[in-house]
Amino acid sequence: MREPLHLRLLRLLRDLGPTSRAELADALAVPRPRLLAELERLVAAGYVAEAGLAASRGGRRSTLVELNPDLRFAAVDLGATSIDVEITNGRLEPVVAYAEPADIRSGPKVIMNRVDELLAKARIDGAYQRLTGIGIGVPGPVSFRDGIPVSPPIMPGWDRFPVREYLTREHGCPCVVDNDVNIMAVGEKHGGVAQAVNDFLFVKIGTGIGCGIHLSGEVYRGPAGCAGDIGHIQVDGHGPVCSCGNVGCLEALFSGAALGREALAAARSGTSSALAERFAAAGSVAAPDVAEGAGEGDVTCIRLIRDGGRRLGGVLAGLVSFANPSMIVIGGGLAQLGHILLAEIRSVVYRRSLPLATGNLPVVLSELGPRAGVTGAAVLASDQAFEQAT
Amino acid sequence: MREPLHLRLLRLLRDLGPTSRAELADALAVPRPRLLAELERLVAAGYVAEAGLAASRGGRRSTLVELNPDLRFAAVDLGATSIDVEITNGRLEPVVAYAEPADIRSGPKVIMNRVDELLAKARIDGAYQRLTGIGIGVPGPVSFRDGIPVSPPIMPGWDRFPVREYLTREHGCPCVVDNDVNIMAVGEKHGGVAQAVNDFLFVKIGTGIGCGIHLSGEVYRGPAGCAGDIGHIQVDGHGPVCSCGNVGCLEALFSGAALGREALAAARSGTSSALAERFAAAGSVAAPDVAEGAGEGDVTCIRLIRDGGRRLGGVLAGLVSFANPSMIVIGGGLAQLGHILLAEIRSVVYRRSLPLATGNLPVVLSELGPRAGVTGAAVLASDQAFEQAT
Repeated sequence: MREPLHLRLLRLLRDLGPTSRAELADALAVPRPRLLAELERLVAAGYVAEAGLAASRGGRRSTLVELNPDLRFAAVDLGATSIDVEITNGRLEPVVAYAEPADIRSGPKVIMNRVDELLAKARIDGAYQRLTGIGIGVPGPVSFRDGIPVSPPIMPGWDRFPVREYLTREHGCPCVVDNDVNIMAVGEKHGGVAQAVNDFLFVKIGTGIGCGIHLSGEVYRGPAGCAGDIGHIQVDGHGPVCSCGNVGCLEALFSGAALGREALAAARSGTSSALAERFAAAGSVAAPDVAEGAGEGDVTCIRLIRDGGRRLGGVLAGLVSFANPSMIVIGGGLAQLGHILLAEIRSVVYRRSLPLATGNLPVVLSELGPRAGVTGAAVLASDQAFEQAT
Repeated sequence: MREPLHLRLLRLLRDLGPTSRAELADALAVPRPRLLAELERLVAAGYVAEAGLAASRGGRRSTLVELNPDLRFAAVDLGATSIDVEITNGRLEPVVAYAEPADIRSGPKVIMNRVDELLAKARIDGAYQRLTGIGIGVPGPVSFRDGIPVSPPIMPGWDRFPVREYLTREHGCPCVVDNDVNIMAVGEKHGGVAQAVNDFLFVKIGTGIGCGIHLSGEVYRGPAGCAGDIGHIQVDGHGPVCSCGNVGCLEALFSGAALGREALAAARSGTSSALAERFAAAGSVAAPDVAEGAGEGDVTCIRLIRDGGRRLGGVLAGLVSFANPSMIVIGGGLAQLGHILLAEIRSVVYRRSLPLATGNLPVVLSELGPRAGVTGAAVLASDQAFEQAT
């Protein structure tokens, strides 16, 4: 039932840094000769390098090995309105990072071209000589196996565009493509708040709402690759019409877009003085203004966040009964609504789900924040490249 | 990533029956000498036996092997109000079966004692000499690892009763304990409508409502073992109070118990002439009367089923968006409400979930009906016993 030795070995060096051969043999539970042979092979292939002597513990000092310092992964997080690119070393530490606004609706030619330009800039800036692997997240459903977006609702022109094939060809290295929420969940599992749990939900609240699912330690994507699409679960049979054509979807009632609409209405009607002031000053209001208003104690802003939290909490309570996760992580742009939102979600989930499921269920904010996506993309890129290091 | 050879080999003989060594070597993709050694070991241990010559295909006729004809599994399905016991041979074909009413609330002493009596009766009737393994399902959450029920709401006195330890000690063979809905899902996957799918939901509508979850080919139980507890998902914030203390739970609005209450009200008020007649004749009405009434075209009965299907469909639509299954199977006592129910569930699921998730999503009735539970219990019993056949 185990993964191949080279994959486990490379992952261990990625996560632990310089390690002695003795520690590696212990951690991997393999005979020392087999480990040494495998290490020799990986040194020859350029994945592993010697890393000097370990600190003395009495007796002969052992030598350390580490991932080749020249390994470089490219992590790309395409959002609805942004491109984030990070170049990392083998340990997934950032070497260089770029973030800029972009409209995913410009289509694959424009966006992928910009990704190429950013990667070229990183090379010219000295961040890498060649890439070992690329991971990329896109804001829509993905066929993980084929490395292509499939009927992505907010990505016109991207349906079945061969993202993986394109990047592999352009950059001559393995590439992995996934949904943006899945990569955020992977990031949070690798370097954030979900490191110790195997079954958790990562809920991204941004322009829309989506959910990354980890079950039994693995990303669960579903047969069609669209598992976690919780934004279109109905929460109010008499609610507003959603962009998907149905009525009362969660994301029609609570999301960056929905909150922006409600904020505008509250500003115009004067229900909220905090929002009215911001509207008068800037000519527009959006979700971040609601967060600020709530921070100042504006009751309408607090109510808007609580209403949203109650709706999201109701959906999550059902998913807790169904999937029995060990943790719920709230991330994405609207996670900045912070503790008012969290308190409301918790209150609904703890009240509505059965005690056996919620007995020990933390509902927490993402630790990695805006870096969750690129972190997860780098993890997937390294997993993929390491697997192919045969 | 593979399971041990002996487990794969024994499963293959269970599912295929008498097979030639050549076919086994092909199907298992192992070198012939390794297969022959393993077979020899399993023959000596009493799991495998010679089964004569294969039909001639020209040339020398090869000899067949099969599971030892003396292997016997006991499959037990404890419901809220019933005990089903089946003794099967190694191929999971029933040798003898008993079914009788019982009240799970009588507690573990009374119920387990009755299970023992039924198993003793089967032995006296000549169904077995010794048992190779036991599988048992109980109507509540189970710690699968520990083989015990955990805080089961409708099983007073059963909390942490050591079911597995008890049966293992009494009958001297491996035993596996699981939730009743999980075993039904396993049964349907082994011998029913879900044989070809790896990701599906088995929805049991009985006294309450529960859901067995298969993801990536495995039963998903969740960290606390209570995944699939969908009966307490809220469907109406202003609905009736549920036995769990919350309001508007799915099972408070649609389940055997809820439908019985509604049928009684319709009979007493005379809204339904079909139900009123039955009530006058028998002094009571319950869910099966609604099914019969609907079959005769009684509009109130049809409306009751449709209302229930709409509510269940709404919950399932959300779960389809979340989990993206390849199939939904409807089973349990109320599956007899049949095609009116199915049509309503389908209509809601197909309308409310996104096209990518429902593009190819059959919503079907259980094929095994009341035998789904014991079938699944026998599968788990044989898996467990085969795994220990070392």
